[in-house]
Amino acid sequence: MCRLVACRGVALLVQKFGGTSVADAERIRSVADYVGRVRKRGDRPVVVVSAMGHETDDLLEVAAKVSRTRPGREMDMLITAGERKAMALLCMALHDLGVPADSFTGSQAGVLTNGEHTQAKIVELRPSRVQAALDAGRVPVVGGAQGVSTDGHEVTFLGRGGSDTTAVALAKALGADACELYTDVSGVFSADPRVVPGARRLVKVNYEEMLEMNAAGCPKPAMRSVEFARTHGVRLHVRSSFTWEPGTWVEKESAVEQPIVSAVLSDQSETKLTVAGVPDHPGVAAKLFRALADKLVNVDMIEQNVSLHGTTDISFTVPHDDLAVAQQIATEMQGELGASGVFADPEIATVSIVGAGMKTHPGVSATMFEVLAAEGINIEMISTSAIRLTCVVSAAAADRAVVALHKAFGLDTEGSL
Amino acid sequence: MCRLVACRGVALLVQKFGGTSVADAERIRSVADYVGRVRKRGDRPVVVVSAMGHETDDLLEVAAKVSRTRPGREMDMLITAGERKAMALLCMALHDLGVPADSFTGSQAGVLTNGEHTQAKIVELRPSRVQAALDAGRVPVVGGAQGVSTDGHEVTFLGRGGSDTTAVALAKALGADACELYTDVSGVFSADPRVVPGARRLVKVNYEEMLEMNAAGCPKPAMRSVEFARTHGVRLHVRSSFTWEPGTWVEKESAVEQPIVSAVLSDQSETKLTVAGVPDHPGVAAKLFRALADKLVNVDMIEQNVSLHGTTDISFTVPHDDLAVAQQIATEMQGELGASGVFADPEIATVSIVGAGMKTHPGVSATMFEVLAAEGINIEMISTSAIRLTCVVSAAAADRAVVALHKAFGLDTEGSL
Repeated sequence: MCRLVACRGVALLVQKFGGTSVADAERIRSVADYVGRVRKRGDRPVVVVSAMGHETDDLLEVAAKVSRTRPGREMDMLITAGERKAMALLCMALHDLGVPADSFTGSQAGVLTNGEHTQAKIVELRPSRVQAALDAGRVPVVGGAQGVSTDGHEVTFLGRGGSDTTAVALAKALGADACELYTDVSGVFSADPRVVPGARRLVKVNYEEMLEMNAAGCPKPAMRSVEFARTHGVRLHVRSSFTWEPGTWVEKESAVEQPIVSAVLSDQSETKLTVAGVPDHPGVAAKLFRALADKLVNVDMIEQNVSLHGTTDISFTVPHDDLAVAQQIATEMQGELGASGVFADPEIATVSIVGAGMKTHPGVSATMFEVLAAEGINIEMISTSAIRLTCVVSAAAADRAVVALHKAFGLDTEGSL
Repeated sequence: MCRLVACRGVALLVQKFGGTSVADAERIRSVADYVGRVRKRGDRPVVVVSAMGHETDDLLEVAAKVSRTRPGREMDMLITAGERKAMALLCMALHDLGVPADSFTGSQAGVLTNGEHTQAKIVELRPSRVQAALDAGRVPVVGGAQGVSTDGHEVTFLGRGGSDTTAVALAKALGADACELYTDVSGVFSADPRVVPGARRLVKVNYEEMLEMNAAGCPKPAMRSVEFARTHGVRLHVRSSFTWEPGTWVEKESAVEQPIVSAVLSDQSETKLTVAGVPDHPGVAAKLFRALADKLVNVDMIEQNVSLHGTTDISFTVPHDDLAVAQQIATEMQGELGASGVFADPEIATVSIVGAGMKTHPGVSATMFEVLAAEGINIEMISTSAIRLTCVVSAAAADRAVVALHKAFGLDTEGSL
């Protein structure tokens, strides 16, 4: 395989363009111009497109107006119309530039999935038509996030972020040199530049770091596609379709001069629930979390306080969307659990540090706690993995915590305030 | 086969709903409610849907913004997204009402076409999935105007009005008792009710009358679908999805008490071109119309005046859209033809009377000319078929001509002014 950095032979590149990259006619023509240049310089692009701008949201909205039940089979038929439009339009724009291009639906591209509508899983790729187009010197343009079920030949949708998965799976199946994920930001940053003006773009992160950053609230690229890329060794390049500058590589090795902490993230998408004063008996937590799991509540962090007087408090976080269900279950079980009360606190945030170097630097957690303490920020819950450390703090303190941590771990770019 | 009028057994009905019938969420729910009632009363509906409201126009507009070339393959991929949305949404609405329903793309419904993109022709129907859904007691909802090419398995679009063709072809293939074409008018009228307040809805017309009415400017149902229906003996029922009242049957036999003239129509979609003062030699007209045909100009009526002084005038009508090309060709050939000039008159209209009874009533044309003369309306060109008589008049006189003819042939409903 030809490494892009090492040589300048012909590279086979899967290039995925997200919704903002193809939001309107002008953006579509801009992408076509770029793909044309990539081909002209001698590389072989395979394009994957998402639906235009807010199209998927618009389709969901009209579905909500039409129907209460919204069966999955029909939702998938509806939503996949979005990528279909985008891919056809992009091909037309390429054609205008004299670039031969063919659009392919998920089915035509051989994206075979299971039958789990609205969030189907890819089971196999048979991209013979895509390969044939490539061999004929054409640019294949594949509709993202869609496939066809192996049982029943039904149209399926891979779910939100599914276009990233399509791109990575195609890159693997075609033996591409890289999978480029074009979006409206210029890469993965050491912190949200809106919060930390001195945040820097990361040149390279490894798969594990990216996955932990996903878990800590970084929405792009979609975690599923990163997992797939890790499993199959597909090199990702997260970059901008607005500036076209080089972005962030996500691959097996980290950057050579690896900092202990690569990025600081915060996330305010969760609520903390506390079931207070439960007897400190075995099986109490099991009962509660089994009931929550049965109702498909997505529990993230869990913490049980030290028992002092034979009772304890169980705190856990759930996405805001799951709060109502979780609160109802906990309240219904209050008697059974012997709890004194159930309290919800939506005004929380998680603050996380992620870095492959943390594995070999045991003092990192102490530093994080000291930095937060010095800022007078109270830590409500803590959760850790080998390369991530997450603290729950009050929502109001989140930005301050991120700025302080970013500075303390030496991530601020030179010359920043 | 069970004739609907003769008995009340179970009827298999293909029901096609046009763009205005599914224009928004409310209309879609209204159609679902109706289809649910049809099924409840014991009949078996197979639904065909067009794209919602102006969706096809919107898609054409965005394509025009993105691309100059607009290759047919990609246009078809783009436009078929419209019916896909409509059919999925209608299925959801049916599901809400407890009616089991499945949407099918043209490909899934087995609509096999040639590869002529943007106006593909159906070559075969293999509706095994539609039949299976019917057999399982479900309502199949098929995307109109779309298919898949037998060579290359490409997505194809049947062109404007193609949903009618899909419906008629499905009705034939499934052996349906009738093909109901639901639209925003309540049937086929003896004249445009906006022009002639006393116009009446025709209970029944035969295929030939309908085809002549199409030729005379009646846009619905699409001529292609009427031809298909005639060839295969499919009974059509043109009716309203707003009032749901019985509409106009189009079938082999005319109404029992058949009037001489069934309808009066006018059409202002054409321009008259006159190539003046050409020598009255053989082959002059042939040269001109071969050149026009080579440029795909759609010539409708042709008239060559009587030669008086060795020269003659050739007049013909073309759609407004073809005027520029036709005028350019005629002007370029002016020298070759020896003509004295080329004149265009867009301010014309055709006025036609159509009726199966005209065949056996030779005095009809004289009556038409007398009526127009009495109104002081000059006839510029005349064209006839066995059951149609068309005159070109000035556009300004068209409505007056229609009103007078409608009255003269006894078509005004009783009690009208």
